[in-house]
Amino acid sequence: MSITKTTIAEELKSIQQEICAALEAADGKAVFSQEPWERPGGGGGLTRVMQHGAVIEKGGVNFSAVHGTLPQNMMKALEVTNPDFFAAGVSIVMHPESPMVPIIHMNVRYFELGDGTWWFGGGIDLTPHYVDATDARWFHEQLKAVCDRFSPAYYPKFKAWADRYFYIPHRKESRGVGGIFFDRLGPETDTRENLFAFIVAVAKTFAPVYTTFIKTKRTLNYTEAQKQWQYLRRGRYVEFNLVYDKGTKFGLETDGRIESILMSLPEKAGWIYNFIPDFDSEEAKTLDYLRTTVDWIG
Amino acid sequence: MSITKTTIAEELKSIQQEICAALEAADGKAVFSQEPWERPGGGGGLTRVMQHGAVIEKGGVNFSAVHGTLPQNMMKALEVTNPDFFAAGVSIVMHPESPMVPIIHMNVRYFELGDGTWWFGGGIDLTPHYVDATDARWFHEQLKAVCDRFSPAYYPKFKAWADRYFYIPHRKESRGVGGIFFDRLGPETDTRENLFAFIVAVAKTFAPVYTTFIKTKRTLNYTEAQKQWQYLRRGRYVEFNLVYDKGTKFGLETDGRIESILMSLPEKAGWIYNFIPDFDSEEAKTLDYLRTTVDWIG
Repeated sequence: MSITKTTIAEELKSIQQEICAALEAADGKAVFSQEPWERPGGGGGLTRVMQHGAVIEKGGVNFSAVHGTLPQNMMKALEVTNPDFFAAGVSIVMHPESPMVPIIHMNVRYFELGDGTWWFGGGIDLTPHYVDATDARWFHEQLKAVCDRFSPAYYPKFKAWADRYFYIPHRKESRGVGGIFFDRLGPETDTRENLFAFIVAVAKTFAPVYTTFIKTKRTLNYTEAQKQWQYLRRGRYVEFNLVYDKGTKFGLETDGRIESILMSLPEKAGWIYNFIPDFDSEEAKTLDYLRTTVDWIG
Repeated sequence: MSITKTTIAEELKSIQQEICAALEAADGKAVFSQEPWERPGGGGGLTRVMQHGAVIEKGGVNFSAVHGTLPQNMMKALEVTNPDFFAAGVSIVMHPESPMVPIIHMNVRYFELGDGTWWFGGGIDLTPHYVDATDARWFHEQLKAVCDRFSPAYYPKFKAWADRYFYIPHRKESRGVGGIFFDRLGPETDTRENLFAFIVAVAKTFAPVYTTFIKTKRTLNYTEAQKQWQYLRRGRYVEFNLVYDKGTKFGLETDGRIESILMSLPEKAGWIYNFIPDFDSEEAKTLDYLRTTVDWIG
């Protein structure tokens, strides 16, 4: 059976449900709220947010399947000439309470124009407050494994793309330890069926990977100083999302549902003027990692 | 004696010193740090930041006087064709510890190109965490008084300009109760001497106005819930500065000294998903004010 916009949207919505269930089970305390919303121009979505869990302080899993006519600025940004569009996706950001548990982001999306042009995009990236090379390597191994099921070319290409994309130029720092990022994967890359299977596999990698971090990191002790460092790292996350993230920018420029767009922001973030970590501290080591591009799978 | 780039820079630097002294006296506890910095392309500045004062949790007073060759993107943004430039200014943001004390911003600047073109810009705006109409009116009266000393046309024009500029489109909210904002005031507005006297008068209005708020508001009690509301209002401030503020955007795009550019961000800011204040609460009343344009001097 060939896939359609409807089957893609339904599968993505069921992935959202599956991920939320896995995260609720892993957290063990909080549950996701559910806000269905409609887009005045066509379609809508379901925003699901968890706040004040045992592990997750604030996290969102957003599903949307929208259609209609692209505004001029979005047509220009997407470099397309046909204004009729359909877009479906799942987008996730998790901010844990503990600085020992990493922040994570995942997004998969499908885009189709009125003239039949279509493509997939997405990615997963990890932002530990404290970078640990063993964890980063394990994370990249999981992503490489899912990529390799589809093409040996994917992981090296999409890992490098993530290094370029999840970068904060004004800080000269990466957002975290990267992951994979890809966009505009269309017929010149593979069939629609195969590419859809790929993004579904990427999405299904999210829950087992992140719940593993939750399980192994949730009981680690931390100090007040480490909590303060977490606020600063979250400040960088806010800077990336508000200044550079394409999804956020499109959302703001196209007058999207603001609470769904900005659910990616942490409950609290901080900025201390001219903060320089102590020499050879864990914080300094994390900054060293973020200031270089690391080939985690050596 | 006609004014020169040097006299403008020296006067602005002495205004920075004067304002820092007044704020230190009003705060009574913390003092401003001093970081002189140099711009690789020419000129430099002095960044002064106060953290953890009795009243000011984090505040910066930045002076800069830079010259050189404009990068292409800045030439385009400024709509100029001559790349040689001189720019001098003082820029201030104060984030108080107490939600009962308002956030304030002030900026005055002078710009001159190699072909002799010149202009002044600047403004003051107030962002109370809780909007009080009496305070907002008094604040606007002080700004109107200083404007009226130069031209009766200034206050209405610059007040309306501030309403347009200090607006957060994606929230459909004003940043605060506004103030005055102006840019590109050149020879078609008045002489360089008169316009410089105007921006000096605006800058000298800052300290008496803000120290009055410090004195009258610093002893007011507040609850933990009001502190949480302050974090959310600061979140909006972060959104405005990172997404819309022209000075911040230019700074990020032209690779300026990042800690001086982002000294405007608060020590802590917050985002709660879909927060809706209780009906008829002080928080709801503040949002009502921010969602309309108010003529404070009725």
